[in-house]
Amino acid sequence: MSSKFKNAKRIEGLDSNVWIEFTKLAADPSVVNLGQGLPDISPPTYVKEELSKIAAIDSLNQYTRGFGHPSLVKALSCLYGKFYQKQINPDKEILVTVGAYGSLFNAIQGLIDEGDEVIVIVPFYDCYESMVRMAGATPVFIPLRSKPVHGKKWSSSDWTLDPQELASKFNSRTKAIILNTPHNPMGKVYTKEELQVIADLCIKHDTLCISDEVYEWLVYTGNKHLKIATFPGMWERTITIGSAGKTFSVTGWKLGWSIGPNHLIKHLQTVQQNTVYTCATPLQEALAQAFWIDIKRMDDPQCYFNSLPKELEVKRDRMVHLLESVGLKPIVPDGGYFIIADVSLLDADLSDMKNNDEPFDYKFVKWMTKNKKLSAIPVSAFCNADTKLQFEKFVRFCFIKKDSTLDAAEEIIKAWTGQKSG
Amino acid sequence: MSSKFKNAKRIEGLDSNVWIEFTKLAADPSVVNLGQGLPDISPPTYVKEELSKIAAIDSLNQYTRGFGHPSLVKALSCLYGKFYQKQINPDKEILVTVGAYGSLFNAIQGLIDEGDEVIVIVPFYDCYESMVRMAGATPVFIPLRSKPVHGKKWSSSDWTLDPQELASKFNSRTKAIILNTPHNPMGKVYTKEELQVIADLCIKHDTLCISDEVYEWLVYTGNKHLKIATFPGMWERTITIGSAGKTFSVTGWKLGWSIGPNHLIKHLQTVQQNTVYTCATPLQEALAQAFWIDIKRMDDPQCYFNSLPKELEVKRDRMVHLLESVGLKPIVPDGGYFIIADVSLLDADLSDMKNNDEPFDYKFVKWMTKNKKLSAIPVSAFCNADTKLQFEKFVRFCFIKKDSTLDAAEEIIKAWTGQKSG
Repeated sequence: MSSKFKNAKRIEGLDSNVWIEFTKLAADPSVVNLGQGLPDISPPTYVKEELSKIAAIDSLNQYTRGFGHPSLVKALSCLYGKFYQKQINPDKEILVTVGAYGSLFNAIQGLIDEGDEVIVIVPFYDCYESMVRMAGATPVFIPLRSKPVHGKKWSSSDWTLDPQELASKFNSRTKAIILNTPHNPMGKVYTKEELQVIADLCIKHDTLCISDEVYEWLVYTGNKHLKIATFPGMWERTITIGSAGKTFSVTGWKLGWSIGPNHLIKHLQTVQQNTVYTCATPLQEALAQAFWIDIKRMDDPQCYFNSLPKELEVKRDRMVHLLESVGLKPIVPDGGYFIIADVSLLDADLSDMKNNDEPFDYKFVKWMTKNKKLSAIPVSAFCNADTKLQFEKFVRFCFIKKDSTLDAAEEIIKAWTGQKSG
Repeated sequence: MSSKFKNAKRIEGLDSNVWIEFTKLAADPSVVNLGQGLPDISPPTYVKEELSKIAAIDSLNQYTRGFGHPSLVKALSCLYGKFYQKQINPDKEILVTVGAYGSLFNAIQGLIDEGDEVIVIVPFYDCYESMVRMAGATPVFIPLRSKPVHGKKWSSSDWTLDPQELASKFNSRTKAIILNTPHNPMGKVYTKEELQVIADLCIKHDTLCISDEVYEWLVYTGNKHLKIATFPGMWERTITIGSAGKTFSVTGWKLGWSIGPNHLIKHLQTVQQNTVYTCATPLQEALAQAFWIDIKRMDDPQCYFNSLPKELEVKRDRMVHLLESVGLKPIVPDGGYFIIADVSLLDADLSDMKNNDEPFDYKFVKWMTKNKKLSAIPVSAFCNADTKLQFEKFVRFCFIKKDSTLDAAEEIIKAWTGQKSG
């Protein structure tokens, strides 16, 4: 075959992808899918209705402003102005992107050069590593480590960064750290003290912070989501990323945003205008309208930013109870819509599994999907090569699912472990 | 300011953009906008209705397959199978992208390396140059040249490539040529003989072809759109790019696709999974449904692929007549929805215009937008630095506009030139 058919070097080795592999497996309709972070609960009615109405308006089916539809950046500016306690310029400090994924890509391509180092906290949403590598930079990994819990419930807050270890990762080549709070897949919600340690190091070493906050509204009782961009000295060096898919349970809309100072956002805008140019207009307008509905009732329990975490907390507790009832020790998440557990205690005969060089969790999830008709995501997919062994006993279950889906999962797990369902 | 706030090198010098500059100017509602290629005619009713219906279906608001929603790639495979006279594998030979723009980006990032050369035909859709530069490659330009027309009507078909000159641009570093037929902004529809010259050179020099065919349905009487990928020896080396926005007059949907052999498409898929991962589900499903409606009636004059060019041909003829009536000599397009004309004969006092280093057409369009409330796009925006002088007398008018918009443009142009409108 012609050598001209070869891929460009920048994507060498970046062709495998956990989502493509495991989503294909879970596509079998007989499988109960707790894999990809994909709600099967209904999105709010008004969100869907806005899109239905807008589809009928001719002009809203045509191109809009490349860096964000005017009504959407205005709504985002109004919403986030409350949290940053500053005016956010809708045109210069916000960029609407193709999902939070697009924001991550624009930030990394726009700011990270070949030879730079980027600190990535393990486990991590898998694209952080491949996007950093596609930019020709080197990811520098640091794992979250758990303190011993001796019989107590295990919480995502037991997993922390060692401040000395973190400090040792910063040097003059460090261009950025990627933070994710609430954290996927752990469900960790970083505390003020933890964020201050990161902020201090960013300022000391003049480092950028790319803060992926897509689960920002999904925090559970006793926890509070904090934005590192609001810490003194951090606004000027932070890109904060949000997601329509996670905010309104419409992952298929593929809209996200980056917020930050114009001296950084302008570089993300340059990437956008040379990659996709603009995002879908009808979805942006519908999202803006949905935001206005909830911005006007933010103190109301009916506001989706308040009602969704309440709804999910019940599902989280149910998943904790289910996993504990079959002898597992899940890590109880303080935020997000995933729960992870060491599943090596569950009875599974993996001896027939091909690909023996795969981590335990890959084989386990494939076996479970095939034999138990239940899917999940292996946590080692969120690890670099060196840390996979540390996490390969864990799998991630998604719980933004309607009760009937969770009932079906419960039935499978209880039958598997010889317990009565009910 | 911290040096860490600087852009990555790959986007150095890529921050200016004609669309952002001129779309902002034309945003004034009192301006008659014949600038950006943005229909103000209604998209087909069934296209909008499909989206309205689909917005109500929960599952179609969630993530779908990353390389293309299953029902959409199936529709595209069925449609294009008719033209390629071969089965097109929907999963392996098609990639759905964020607009044709996203397809161009994925193709260039996935296949073009630093140090490669890419042949670009002038004038060109402006992002070709910046995307090639962002990949670290060198664009090698060759202009279309017009033969003398001596009083005859001037046609886009009078503009051709010189075969010897084209051959001289190929060498061992040439990774690809970017073709655009029907051509924006010229409206040129490449003939079989012209495409054969390009195909022969691609095969001789083992070069890829990225064929941007977004205006594929918009060809006027006496012309026929041909796909270079169907020429012998070309399928294996061609990525063909299409657009939902141009096909169904919904530019705001930002959906496009790449079609080609799996050994090339798989590299575009790798770029996609590391940049945006997937495209919007409700829009993809609505597009699939729209395609099925028209695939079933392709021989029917009602089929949008047939009715839209008929509708546009009338508008083209009207624009030709208008421009001729005020003494201009437009280049009559054989395809697409743009018409270009040398406007230097029109009376415009540009002496007050700032930015004296700007090309004539930039100043002219800015002056016209401000003083005549009519917008267009300067053709030198579609040129590299060396060829701007060759094209700076031309501006591009978009004619996919309702009659009332064209009436308003006619009124402005006739009043300007002292003619009676009628």
